[in-house]
Amino acid sequence: MENEIVTVLDIETTGLDPHTDHITEIAAIRAEVGPGGYIREIGRFQTYVALPDVNGEAVEIPEFITELTGIKAEDLRGAPSVWSAIGALLAFVGEAAVIAHNIPFDLRFIAANHPLGDVITYPHGFACTRAMSRLIDPDENASLAPTCERYGIALNGHHRAMNDVEATLQLYAVLKEKAEVNGITYRNVVVDSPERPLTYTPPGAIVRTIERKQTKEVA
Amino acid sequence: MENEIVTVLDIETTGLDPHTDHITEIAAIRAEVGPGGYIREIGRFQTYVALPDVNGEAVEIPEFITELTGIKAEDLRGAPSVWSAIGALLAFVGEAAVIAHNIPFDLRFIAANHPLGDVITYPHGFACTRAMSRLIDPDENASLAPTCERYGIALNGHHRAMNDVEATLQLYAVLKEKAEVNGITYRNVVVDSPERPLTYTPPGAIVRTIERKQTKEVA
Repeated sequence: MENEIVTVLDIETTGLDPHTDHITEIAAIRAEVGPGGYIREIGRFQTYVALPDVNGEAVEIPEFITELTGIKAEDLRGAPSVWSAIGALLAFVGEAAVIAHNIPFDLRFIAANHPLGDVITYPHGFACTRAMSRLIDPDENASLAPTCERYGIALNGHHRAMNDVEATLQLYAVLKEKAEVNGITYRNVVVDSPERPLTYTPPGAIVRTIERKQTKEVA
Repeated sequence: MENEIVTVLDIETTGLDPHTDHITEIAAIRAEVGPGGYIREIGRFQTYVALPDVNGEAVEIPEFITELTGIKAEDLRGAPSVWSAIGALLAFVGEAAVIAHNIPFDLRFIAANHPLGDVITYPHGFACTRAMSRLIDPDENASLAPTCERYGIALNGHHRAMNDVEATLQLYAVLKEKAEVNGITYRNVVVDSPERPLTYTPPGAIVRTIERKQTKEVA
């Protein structure tokens, strides 16, 4: 296993649909990852993102989203526009491979909100720690919290973007080694399954279909 | 005094001359600042910056710079290029006012290293907390550490970019209020003095010449 430069990212949103919902927070850590859980941090970026006005009205954050993420509309006052925030993210990621937990969700929102969002994974592709978890432990719950728990990785304050990024980075270092030792292909791989159909296929993705059911998933 | 959105930034470099020296680290915090030392953080960005090859040879970091900043060449391996890092900074700053301690130094390096570096202060201008310190307390040492000390602001790990940014943000909140109460103009103001001549005048800057000597300055 060779060392590689990655950028792990996570976005928080007002909901699941990029055409009606909005990004509220972006976080990312750029790091070198190597064998034995080696992680060397190179930089990190976290920002709230301003909500747009739609038909002259400020978009509101649904109450259950504020409960889930802790993010209130007033937190986003004075934040960069979604164009600025994704523009900064694209420049920060540069040529690093992009890592996220359930990456189709993040890449879909990024592509829908910036004219160059699609190229974020160029040229070194991406890895999805959720797909890696499904491929390595097909019977286990692949959500971030239970996967971190299985591998003894702390996840404090789940659904604040930087907390999720920190945990995902550690998880990636562990799962990458495990996948490589077991000959499991994970680069650019996304997982489709009847219980959780793929809603977005990132450019260049390899889709693996898993029929086997995982244990009940939590958010 | 009205609340405003600012981005406080700091860069570390291999030396003083942007034509022969290089940026090694960038840090920034975007925040809302208001009366009574009110600070609400909106986002933060910190990254090492890759050193270029010059005539096919990797640039080295002088030993005294590593001692001053703690930054070693190996820390910069895999870091974003200076174009990417400043590109990300420009997008992150967006339309916020730009704040730094001894801002001509930072703006000069940014302008010298990115084709759009000059527009970072557009449209809301900038403030230099070193100039503010000189204008408010003309007889005192205006360097970051002694100014922070005078105002009871903690500065841990001076010359690591994010530590300096955190201290400068607090300092700005205090000095802004003091300047406004005393009718001192500080927006877009830089200070020139015989003991420390201005080496770069940012676009749109108002140059104030101070003949009076401050007490001996430290780095």
